[in-house]
Amino acid sequence: MNPQAIDTYFKEYRETHLEELKAFLRIPSVSSLSEHKEDVRSAAEWLKASMEKAGLENVKVDETAGHPVVYADWLHAEGKPTVLVYGHYDVQPVDPLHLWETGPFDPQVRDNKLYARGASDDKGQTFMHVKAVEALLQLNGELPVNMKFIIEGEEEIGSPNLPVYVQENQELLKADLIVISDTGMQGPGRPAVCYGLRGLAGIQIDLTGPKGDLHSGLYGGAVQNPLHAISEILASFHDEDGVITVDGFYDNLVPVSDEERAEFAALPFDLDEEKKALGITEDFGEKGYSFIERTWIRPTLEINGITGGFSGEGIKTVLPSEASAKITCRLVPGQDPDDIVAKLKAHVESHKPAGVTVSISEFDKGKPFLTPYDHPAIQAAGRSYEKVYKVPTAFTRMGGSVPIVAAFDEILGLPVVLMGFGLSSENFHAPNEHFHLENFDQGLRVISDYLFEAANL
Amino acid sequence: MNPQAIDTYFKEYRETHLEELKAFLRIPSVSSLSEHKEDVRSAAEWLKASMEKAGLENVKVDETAGHPVVYADWLHAEGKPTVLVYGHYDVQPVDPLHLWETGPFDPQVRDNKLYARGASDDKGQTFMHVKAVEALLQLNGELPVNMKFIIEGEEEIGSPNLPVYVQENQELLKADLIVISDTGMQGPGRPAVCYGLRGLAGIQIDLTGPKGDLHSGLYGGAVQNPLHAISEILASFHDEDGVITVDGFYDNLVPVSDEERAEFAALPFDLDEEKKALGITEDFGEKGYSFIERTWIRPTLEINGITGGFSGEGIKTVLPSEASAKITCRLVPGQDPDDIVAKLKAHVESHKPAGVTVSISEFDKGKPFLTPYDHPAIQAAGRSYEKVYKVPTAFTRMGGSVPIVAAFDEILGLPVVLMGFGLSSENFHAPNEHFHLENFDQGLRVISDYLFEAANL
Repeated sequence: MNPQAIDTYFKEYRETHLEELKAFLRIPSVSSLSEHKEDVRSAAEWLKASMEKAGLENVKVDETAGHPVVYADWLHAEGKPTVLVYGHYDVQPVDPLHLWETGPFDPQVRDNKLYARGASDDKGQTFMHVKAVEALLQLNGELPVNMKFIIEGEEEIGSPNLPVYVQENQELLKADLIVISDTGMQGPGRPAVCYGLRGLAGIQIDLTGPKGDLHSGLYGGAVQNPLHAISEILASFHDEDGVITVDGFYDNLVPVSDEERAEFAALPFDLDEEKKALGITEDFGEKGYSFIERTWIRPTLEINGITGGFSGEGIKTVLPSEASAKITCRLVPGQDPDDIVAKLKAHVESHKPAGVTVSISEFDKGKPFLTPYDHPAIQAAGRSYEKVYKVPTAFTRMGGSVPIVAAFDEILGLPVVLMGFGLSSENFHAPNEHFHLENFDQGLRVISDYLFEAANL
Repeated sequence: MNPQAIDTYFKEYRETHLEELKAFLRIPSVSSLSEHKEDVRSAAEWLKASMEKAGLENVKVDETAGHPVVYADWLHAEGKPTVLVYGHYDVQPVDPLHLWETGPFDPQVRDNKLYARGASDDKGQTFMHVKAVEALLQLNGELPVNMKFIIEGEEEIGSPNLPVYVQENQELLKADLIVISDTGMQGPGRPAVCYGLRGLAGIQIDLTGPKGDLHSGLYGGAVQNPLHAISEILASFHDEDGVITVDGFYDNLVPVSDEERAEFAALPFDLDEEKKALGITEDFGEKGYSFIERTWIRPTLEINGITGGFSGEGIKTVLPSEASAKITCRLVPGQDPDDIVAKLKAHVESHKPAGVTVSISEFDKGKPFLTPYDHPAIQAAGRSYEKVYKVPTAFTRMGGSVPIVAAFDEILGLPVVLMGFGLSSENFHAPNEHFHLENFDQGLRVISDYLFEAANL
């Protein structure tokens, strides 16, 4: 590979690439909302056309029981490894809309940052892989490795149909290595390769008290208020030290070595800076663990939403019939999502106050994932980052879940390299999501280089 | 008083009275809707004419910043007490109109029930007081007590202008006793005198954690989740026995006598029937008190709404920036709304978990009201009911608040007797409002008798 030629190419096409990415971002492919079903499909079709233009072959929009999967490949590097790139073209909902400075589907560049829903998570990063392939094919007429792409439209709703797709297409998806860019860097100019992700398990708790809303003056005090009951249940999940009190929650955790914990402790991390960035005055979490450890190697239980009663302006003296809460747990190696859901249910049942009935529904689950951090494919990714960013690469874990990573690991039995270009400040899942364009630029170079590194694995 | 003569009189004039009441009910005096502004005034004028015809004096339609107040008096019972009658001539809106069997402003008698908006609440009951005065003046040429009437046109919108009117007309409204017929009986044939209402104090709690919504996977476990914090705060308001744990909340409560509690216990009340009606399997509330006591004589703290995080369908793994809750307390004698709000604030501050900031706003307040159960004016009302209905009168309190009652109590410093003739089945505020005419007939006799009882107070 000639880094100079690559560099020149990406500079020359920068505006073209950005305009193309903006077109991709204008499609409101919110996978969780049924009114956007056709938009999700449009994003898949857009991606297909973009891949064909890049020179990828066998490009197709494959049906699933939900939103489609986009597949593509280039298989002419005989005797060389095959790299499977996974990404997603669906995005999170955009509410609260009024907090966006510019429309979530009206991409705008401000201060070298591209603002739009999906700019970073994950349309932007997926797009970079397509453009790296296009660049190498344009410059060299060939790729250093065989490539396969599998880009789904349901990541933000927990990839409900991808495992079946992967299961049914094991031959098609045969590869040596999976590369995913859907994670973050350690900070501006500080690249990271992620080798572990937390898993996911969640439930919705629906409580019902009286059969209709009651006047809280006439009945308050004598009828269990579902909002009281849900508060009690929710408050019972943690003790005062931030430890989760669900019976058996921490059973069978795979121990984290002192060496790994020492590596985490050595990472450049400024707690005060982090607190400032988040706008918090105190950090809070499980006693005995650092901020990094709490988010990477410890399981969590978070309430994601509570609803019930009157939420308008002013006062309404209602004792509501119903109250609901959504909670999700992040899981670490050793925890099984089904087992955790069963334990959550048992906890809710045993903490249910008198006078309400409880109904629990399950959300999609994801297993935790871990690739040894000294795996050659991981170390090679570190080298590619270092060549472009000119600083040592951090080897990290991540607090989030990419459920499909665990499924890939399980079904295809391949090492997974998580090489992301996002920054934690980029408001994934929140208003004003954006992508720092210096990482778009550098990332294109890192990805291109990694294909050459992968050729030698 | 000659009960026989009164009886004969009301029988003789029954049709005339009903026709007059129907004319009153035909006026759509909906106070909340600006298109009915002139109708509200027409109702006031109609009432003025009816009062003049009855023999009341100094009848006037007094302006306020909103709908007018109708005043009238008869002050020739020298040396005798003065009874001030409060009522309202405005009515609730009528939607959904299609559920009315006959028009809301087309009064019809079916099965000895008079159907129309306002038939029971409160035109019918107000009208009865005017007709009782007319009857006594017709029969005796005089009243046993001095009388004043203050009938407002804004009760259904929360009496926004009446407190100012009362404040500015303290001399005009000077009396010994206030009588209000705007509450319900215990059931068919079961008269009740209400002598206590709970007051109201409430706050909204707004918690802020991180400055924006965060991804619960990336930050969960290391950043305080405002939904956890609000659950902890809300769960801290009660102990497991339903006792409110706010410091000093029960200070200075006016004790309820064993005699009063015995009266409550003796009231016909079927808990199983009540539970069935409410659709609950268990009753729940402060330990040591009955269902009736929990709603009438004990203060409460109810959560009326909780908001925060994601409330849509499915899952969104958000750690929200904000969480809010609305709570209202019902207060009993001895509790001051301002003091309770201060105590609620102190409780929230002292139970605020680490990592969130709290902001508290106050709602409108209302003082509790109580005329002592053994007050002669209350007991006299019970005797009047008993003479007519031939069963013992229930002495009750009510869980709700009627802010204007507390205002009368506070500004004028008078005992208030709530002697109602409505039934809870009569659809106040709902389609097909009606008034059981046996209570119209009996009520005229009770009210007439009560004026003689009041003469001896």
